[in-house]
Amino acid sequence: MSARDWRIGVAGLGTVGAGLLGFLAERPGFAPAGGRVTVTGVSARSRSRPRPFDISSLAWFDDPVALATSADNDIFVELIGGSDGPAKAAVEAALRAGKPVVTANKALIAEHGAELAVLAEAQGVPLLFEAAVMGGTPAVKMVREALVGDDIQSIAGILNGTCNYILTEMDSGGRAFADVLAEAQRLGYAEADPTMDVGGFDAAHKITILAALAFGCAPNFAAAEIEGVDQIDLMDVKLARDLGYRVKLVASADRSEDGVLVRVHPSLAPIQHPLSQAGGALNALFIEGSRIGRIFVQGPGAGAGPTAAAVAADIADVMTGAVRPVFQAPATTLKPFTPVDPSRSMGRAYLRFLVKDEPGVIAAVSETLADAGVSIESFLQKPVENADGVPIVLTTHAVAESVLTAAIDRIADLPAVLDRPRLLRIARI
Amino acid sequence: MSARDWRIGVAGLGTVGAGLLGFLAERPGFAPAGGRVTVTGVSARSRSRPRPFDISSLAWFDDPVALATSADNDIFVELIGGSDGPAKAAVEAALRAGKPVVTANKALIAEHGAELAVLAEAQGVPLLFEAAVMGGTPAVKMVREALVGDDIQSIAGILNGTCNYILTEMDSGGRAFADVLAEAQRLGYAEADPTMDVGGFDAAHKITILAALAFGCAPNFAAAEIEGVDQIDLMDVKLARDLGYRVKLVASADRSEDGVLVRVHPSLAPIQHPLSQAGGALNALFIEGSRIGRIFVQGPGAGAGPTAAAVAADIADVMTGAVRPVFQAPATTLKPFTPVDPSRSMGRAYLRFLVKDEPGVIAAVSETLADAGVSIESFLQKPVENADGVPIVLTTHAVAESVLTAAIDRIADLPAVLDRPRLLRIARI
Repeated sequence: MSARDWRIGVAGLGTVGAGLLGFLAERPGFAPAGGRVTVTGVSARSRSRPRPFDISSLAWFDDPVALATSADNDIFVELIGGSDGPAKAAVEAALRAGKPVVTANKALIAEHGAELAVLAEAQGVPLLFEAAVMGGTPAVKMVREALVGDDIQSIAGILNGTCNYILTEMDSGGRAFADVLAEAQRLGYAEADPTMDVGGFDAAHKITILAALAFGCAPNFAAAEIEGVDQIDLMDVKLARDLGYRVKLVASADRSEDGVLVRVHPSLAPIQHPLSQAGGALNALFIEGSRIGRIFVQGPGAGAGPTAAAVAADIADVMTGAVRPVFQAPATTLKPFTPVDPSRSMGRAYLRFLVKDEPGVIAAVSETLADAGVSIESFLQKPVENADGVPIVLTTHAVAESVLTAAIDRIADLPAVLDRPRLLRIARI
Repeated sequence: MSARDWRIGVAGLGTVGAGLLGFLAERPGFAPAGGRVTVTGVSARSRSRPRPFDISSLAWFDDPVALATSADNDIFVELIGGSDGPAKAAVEAALRAGKPVVTANKALIAEHGAELAVLAEAQGVPLLFEAAVMGGTPAVKMVREALVGDDIQSIAGILNGTCNYILTEMDSGGRAFADVLAEAQRLGYAEADPTMDVGGFDAAHKITILAALAFGCAPNFAAAEIEGVDQIDLMDVKLARDLGYRVKLVASADRSEDGVLVRVHPSLAPIQHPLSQAGGALNALFIEGSRIGRIFVQGPGAGAGPTAAAVAADIADVMTGAVRPVFQAPATTLKPFTPVDPSRSMGRAYLRFLVKDEPGVIAAVSETLADAGVSIESFLQKPVENADGVPIVLTTHAVAESVLTAAIDRIADLPAVLDRPRLLRIARI
C-alpha cells in the first residue's frame, strides 16, 4: 500500500466544489488507498465571494487551465460545469499534461466524452465521472466496472431529480406544472433557467453516458430523442392516476441488432412499480443484462453531500492506480453509435383526446384507431372540472410508434376533437 | 492500455465455475482492460465427471494448492467454497506466491478475511470477492469503492435467496415451511443440507463481509447474532399479513458509538416496503450513510450467470492494476470489531401468544406488558383454524430488547398462555 499523498486541484467552488472541500475538511485523514488527500489549489469565478470555508491557505488560480496543468497537484477535479468553455479547456489541458481527471460534468462527457477518452487513454491516465450520473448513487461504476461481465441490453430510469420532484408534487398535490416549478425555484431545487432540467436535456446527458458505458459505443448526445416535462398537463397526471399510473420522466437506452435507441420522455409507470414509488428528488435505475438479469438501484441523484462523496470515490479510484477504459472498451475501439429510428419502436401508450360532448365521438375515435391497427387496452371517459370539452383517455396494447402517431394525426383532424391529442408512453420496464 | 493477456487458474467447477468457463467460452475476446483473459488450468474434485464444457485442453490439477501456485497462471480464482480446508489452503498459497485472488467464497472471507487481507496487502496483490455477496448485484463494490467517500451508518437487506424464496412461497401460497423447503430442494433452489441457508448462516457471512467493508473493522463472523427462518410458523406469516406486513429474513449491520451490531433474523416489513416487494430469490439491500443518504439496490443474489459475471468483473478489476485495501482500510489498521449487546437495541416488535379462550386473558397479557413498560401499537385477536387456543397478536412501539424479552418471559408463565410466545422484530428500515 503506497503511503504517497495526493494533491488535488479543484476548479469550480459551487455546490459540489464546496461539498468536496467540506468533506475533505471533515475527514482530514481521508486516505482510501493508503495515501492522504490534500487540496492544494482552487479556481473559481470569484476569489472574494463569501464562502462557508477558508480558501486563503490554498493556491488561487484565476484560470482553471493554469490550475489543471500546475505541477503542484496530482489530480485535477473539474466542477465548473458546461459542455464547452473553461471546463472543456481545463479538462483537455489536464489530460494533455498526463494528469488524472475527476469531473461531475455530464454535459462535457455526454457531448465530448469520446474525444476526451482518446486523450486520456493515450496518456494512460484515468478520466472519471461518477458524480455526473445519479449523484452519490454509483450508476457509472456499476455499469462500467461491476457489470463488465454482463451483456447489458437496456437501461431505464429516473435520472433528473428536479423533474421527479415537480411530477411528484403535481401528482400528490394536484398542482399545475408552472406552479410547482416556481416553488422549486424559490426553494433552490430548480435553476433560474430550468431548461436543462425540465426540457429533459440533463437526463439525456446522463443516459447518453450510461449507454456508452453499457454498450461499448461512443457517447452520442446528438442522437438522443428528448422530450421534457414542461408540456405535461395536470389533467393527464390526474387521469393517468385514475388508470393506476404515475407520470415519470424516464430516460432509457436500448440495444438491438439495429443499433441503440436513447430516449428521454414522460412515461407512465404503474403506481406499485419501483419507478412510481421513487418520489421527490430520488433517482432510480433499472439495468437489464442477459446474464445478471435485472438490477435496480435507487438513491439521491443530486445535492452537495452525495455528489461530493461520488467525487471523493473517484479520487480514491485514481489513487489505486487502476487504468481501465474510460467507457466500456478502449476509446479507439468503441463502436459507432448507430441510432435506431424511434418510429419503429414498439410500446404501449396513453392517449388523451379532448372532444365535444356529443354522440358518436367515442365511436369515431375508436374506429379511427381500429382502422389504423391500434388496439385499445383500457378506456376512460370522465368529466373534468374547468376543462373545455370532455377528455377521452385510453391505453393501447403494444404498437409501433409510427402507426400510433399516424392514428393520432387522423384523430386530431376529426371535427369533434377540440385540442391537440396527448400521447404519453407507458414505461416498458 | 496494456495489451497483456491474463491467464486464469480456476479451482472448483461447480455451478459458478461452470458459469465462468461458459462465460469466457462465449466471450473469447473478453478484454475488459485491454488484455485478453484465458483459462489455462483447472482443479476440481473429479476430473472425469461429465461436464457441459470441454476441459481437455486445460491443465488439470488434482491439488488446488498446486494450481494456486502454478507459474502458468496470473490470477487464481477460488470457487471451491467452505471456510476452511482446500479453499483456504489454496487462497493462502496463491497470496503467499504473490498472485491476485478472486473468490466467491463468503464463508472464507467472513471467517478468515482479516488474516487473508493482511497476507494480500503484504504482497501488494488484490483479494476480491464481489461474487460472495448478492451474486451479480455489486454490493461489495458499492460499499468498498463507490461509497468510500461516505460514512456508512447502517446496512440492511435480504441476502439469502433461498430463504426469501421459501418465505415468499409461504406468504403467497399459504404453505408451511417444511413443505416449501422440500419443494425448493426438489427444484434445486435449496441444498440437500439446507442448514447454511435456512439457519441464517449464509446471510450472516454476507452481512459480516459488508459490515467490515462499510465500517472499516475486521470481519467478525463469531459476533453475528443469527436466527434463521426454520422456526417460522405459517400462522405468523398469515397474521403478519393481516397486520400489513410480510416476514423477511433481514440481515443488518449497524454502527453506533458503542460498536457494531450484526444480526440476521426474521423481520416484518410493511407490504409496500421495497424489502417486502423483493420476492422470490431476489436480494435487496439498503445502505445508509451520513452524506449520501439512503441507497437501495436489488437484483438476483445467486445463479450461475450472475455469479460468474461478478467473478468476471473482479478479474477485470485485477487487470486494471488497481491496488486498494481489501476492506475499507489497510488490514493492519482495521478497527477491532466491538460487538454491541443486542439486548440494548431498540425496536418495534410483533408478538404472538396462543392463549386459552377464556375471560381476562387479554387483560392479563396487556397488563403484564404495561407493567414491563412495553407499549402496544396495534392489537389483533383472530380465530385461526386448526389451532389449539386463540392467537393474540400485537405490535409494540419501540422498546429495548431486554425489556421486551423480560415481558415475554412473564407472559409465558401466565396460566392461560398455551405455547411459547413468538417474537418477530419489525424491520427498522
